Amino acid sequence: MNKHYEQLLPYLERNHAYQAALALFSWDAETLAPISASEYTAKYVGILSEEAYHILICDEVKELLHKLSSKKEYDSLTVSEQAIVRLLQKEYDKMSCIPAKEYREFSELCAAAHPIYCRAKQTGKFEDFAPTLEKLIDYTRRFASYRAKNGESLYNILLNDYEEGFTTEVLDDFFSKVREAIVPLLKKVTEKNNTIDKSYNISFYPVDIQSGFCRFLSGYLGFDFNRGVIAESEHPFTTSLHNHDVRITNHYYSDNLESSMFSAIHETGHALYEMGVDDSITGTPAGSGISMGMHESQSRFYENMIGRSKDFWIPLFPKLKETYPEELEQVSLDDFIAGINKAEPGLIRTEADELTYPLHILIRYELEKDIFEGNCNIADLPKLWAKKYEEYLGVTPDNDGEGILQDIHWALASFGYFPSYAIGSAIAAQLYDYLAQRMPLSDYLKEGNLVPVREYLRDHIHKYGASYPTNELLKQVTGEEFNPDYYIRYLTEKYTTLYHL
Amino acid sequence: MNKHYEQLLPYLERNHAYQAALALFSWDAETLAPISASEYTAKYVGILSEEAYHILICDEVKELLHKLSSKKEYDSLTVSEQAIVRLLQKEYDKMSCIPAKEYREFSELCAAAHPIYCRAKQTGKFEDFAPTLEKLIDYTRRFASYRAKNGESLYNILLNDYEEGFTTEVLDDFFSKVREAIVPLLKKVTEKNNTIDKSYNISFYPVDIQSGFCRFLSGYLGFDFNRGVIAESEHPFTTSLHNHDVRITNHYYSDNLESSMFSAIHETGHALYEMGVDDSITGTPAGSGISMGMHESQSRFYENMIGRSKDFWIPLFPKLKETYPEELEQVSLDDFIAGINKAEPGLIRTEADELTYPLHILIRYELEKDIFEGNCNIADLPKLWAKKYEEYLGVTPDNDGEGILQDIHWALASFGYFPSYAIGSAIAAQLYDYLAQRMPLSDYLKEGNLVPVREYLRDHIHKYGASYPTNELLKQVTGEEFNPDYYIRYLTEKYTTLYHL
Repeated sequence: MNKHYEQLLPYLERNHAYQAALALFSWDAETLAPISASEYTAKYVGILSEEAYHILICDEVKELLHKLSSKKEYDSLTVSEQAIVRLLQKEYDKMSCIPAKEYREFSELCAAAHPIYCRAKQTGKFEDFAPTLEKLIDYTRRFASYRAKNGESLYNILLNDYEEGFTTEVLDDFFSKVREAIVPLLKKVTEKNNTIDKSYNISFYPVDIQSGFCRFLSGYLGFDFNRGVIAESEHPFTTSLHNHDVRITNHYYSDNLESSMFSAIHETGHALYEMGVDDSITGTPAGSGISMGMHESQSRFYENMIGRSKDFWIPLFPKLKETYPEELEQVSLDDFIAGINKAEPGLIRTEADELTYPLHILIRYELEKDIFEGNCNIADLPKLWAKKYEEYLGVTPDNDGEGILQDIHWALASFGYFPSYAIGSAIAAQLYDYLAQRMPLSDYLKEGNLVPVREYLRDHIHKYGASYPTNELLKQVTGEEFNPDYYIRYLTEKYTTLYHL
Repeated sequence: MNKHYEQLLPYLERNHAYQAALALFSWDAETLAPISASEYTAKYVGILSEEAYHILICDEVKELLHKLSSKKEYDSLTVSEQAIVRLLQKEYDKMSCIPAKEYREFSELCAAAHPIYCRAKQTGKFEDFAPTLEKLIDYTRRFASYRAKNGESLYNILLNDYEEGFTTEVLDDFFSKVREAIVPLLKKVTEKNNTIDKSYNISFYPVDIQSGFCRFLSGYLGFDFNRGVIAESEHPFTTSLHNHDVRITNHYYSDNLESSMFSAIHETGHALYEMGVDDSITGTPAGSGISMGMHESQSRFYENMIGRSKDFWIPLFPKLKETYPEELEQVSLDDFIAGINKAEPGLIRTEADELTYPLHILIRYELEKDIFEGNCNIADLPKLWAKKYEEYLGVTPDNDGEGILQDIHWALASFGYFPSYAIGSAIAAQLYDYLAQRMPLSDYLKEGNLVPVREYLRDHIHKYGASYPTNELLKQVTGEEFNPDYYIRYLTEKYTTLYHL
């Protein structure tokens, strides 16, 4: 092993001890911690976050990274080691160029922004949040400008933080395809929406029975209960302390059958990624999924391509009917498949179906791009929002709480994050197309055999963690970099068939 | 505020951030973490423990403690500040006198001892653990000797770590009273044991119903669900991240009614202590109960003096019967009170009733004293154990797993810890005697009003955390230092009455 790389390891391990503790605090806060604990616990979490930061952002690490960046040294590293050095350098550059004083002010602004955002969302008044948002944008712009080289666009710098290589050039192409294909398709679908009856979905489905069935579903997909746990929280999520401790949550609504089942499948998709990371890189900067988009591709692949397919439910639907014999008595497998795939334009992203989902993201992308390219006033955002929702989805929010304020990301200064959601769906479709050619996927699903697909994804994607950038990994697996055409074709064919268009 | 004390605060706060994280990891390991996680997580816990240690055991803290130890500076501090300085100095002296190399070797020995102990317990063979125990004792002896002043006895140094001021002189007096009063009393009780029928206790009591009733009991006693949570684990315990996040666990056996109810009451007693600590000292070395004995006094006060009294069950027994109408149909309140107080000599400490419990502790005390005063060979311990169990309790273990190996404490090198269990019971009796004179306790219990006793304990004990040593606190509350006579009298009167002796 390269000796400078070896000297770097204790820093990585120490840092990850803190990351594991912070992940556990965060998990605990969402799933269990008593309500009055947060104020006190926040202080300790703040201290540990700061200590974790200083372990990596220090002169010793800077020096080691510098030595490892020479061609000779870098070339002597393994692929995973190179990735670790690269990712650490990226984080180092991002953080170290911000003056400590500005970063502290920014952290305080973020902390203050949270309750302001929550109140504004509740009262539905964007104007109450706008001054804070303006400041958050200013800081984000300034911090990005510290890293801008040769007139690089600030929004591209932000996008690159979440998804390396997915510039506005790539995304403009992607989202224009989405807009051109999906907006007219959705109009046709909406006209025929009364052809699908999914009234069965709204009935009384006891929470403990849902919980049992969802646990079964996770195990069916390959969730390893020796290396993971499932709990409840307000919103479903996945977290990981390391590859032997991966945790998912769910939320059960007693009047909704679908919601928890597809959350379980979605989060299990994320969990399989984290559980599949190789032991040799867990607990390092390469020891987790490469990007938010790639992660989302795994969850959506399982949720949509697998979990909403008829093949998948052929062996499972009888068990579902046994579980809810009265509620589903009159429902056939075909009714159920139509129901779980029904598309309905709505206002809320997190409740959107597979077809309307990318339109919600498209709108955020267009607005974020306008903001960071200086093409709009913050005060005008709700008007722009309403116009785009009317145009693309045919719906208009009554207030900003169900409009531009519905998602917390901007209040966390997470600008450039949203596109990953749609990138994930598109990658899922690309992988699905490839896998369906690579193996008898349909037969496997009908037999209830999820092993081949899970092992394929583990051996070709999961085990590498963040060792390869998204596009490089995609090319290794499918022979092709990101190509949104698969996604457009997948949605078009699926919904044309489903609605007999 | 004293400026050196002020300089000490950031060290305390940083250290407590780690302590909170470690408490959370430990809680999580016992209640939820997946089975395969431990190997990986242990590494991170080790790193955080070491970092926490270095925050307090460092030259800067040493220097500040030195400055604060001058009479002038010390006198300028508040009572809690003085306690914090005193406790920190005690910890500092204990740790800093051990050469780093020896401490590392000792830590490695402890880690290795755990599986050796577990295997020996399982096979019931003390001889497999004896060589390791011998080494653990040697290290403990050596570390204690570094602190010994003027020929102080090593066992007294160990006892002082757990319970300040409770030397062998105090404990010899205490335990000889226990032996002289309880051993003959137990013989008489055992002869009349068939007069109490508690067969109702062994029936089918569904776990989820037990869990609901126990939750109700905790709330009834004043457990604040905004500041605490209840979960399940193999053995019930209490932990605390700070005074706004106090957690208890329970274990439900579907064939045992009593077990979980009295665990709930016991752990709630511990929790009320931690929840009652004043906000001004939480997260400092004084921010938790003063000692293991004082803590145990609170849990046993609630479990035994309150929870096993007829007065307590007068308002509750109808609800218990409603909860288990068939199982308890033939059981009267008096049958139930006799049942939950029935004494039966047994081999296992953790399953012991109120009367036999101190005899288990007495035996450990006598053996520990012999060990550290050099009066016995390690190899002879099982024989000595059997002799004492026969003499005091009239029972003999079939193997060492249910004998000397039943408790893990020695494998953790926790020598001097056991006496605290009996000290706790005795303090509980002393407090009970005082409170029963101080307030109409019996009436309150019959009315189902637990508020006055809870508030009294909070205002006179809990809020101070570890600000006062046990004896000083006891004197403040009851006007008297530790006095085991109350305990002896309490047990004698209770069991004489119960068994009509």
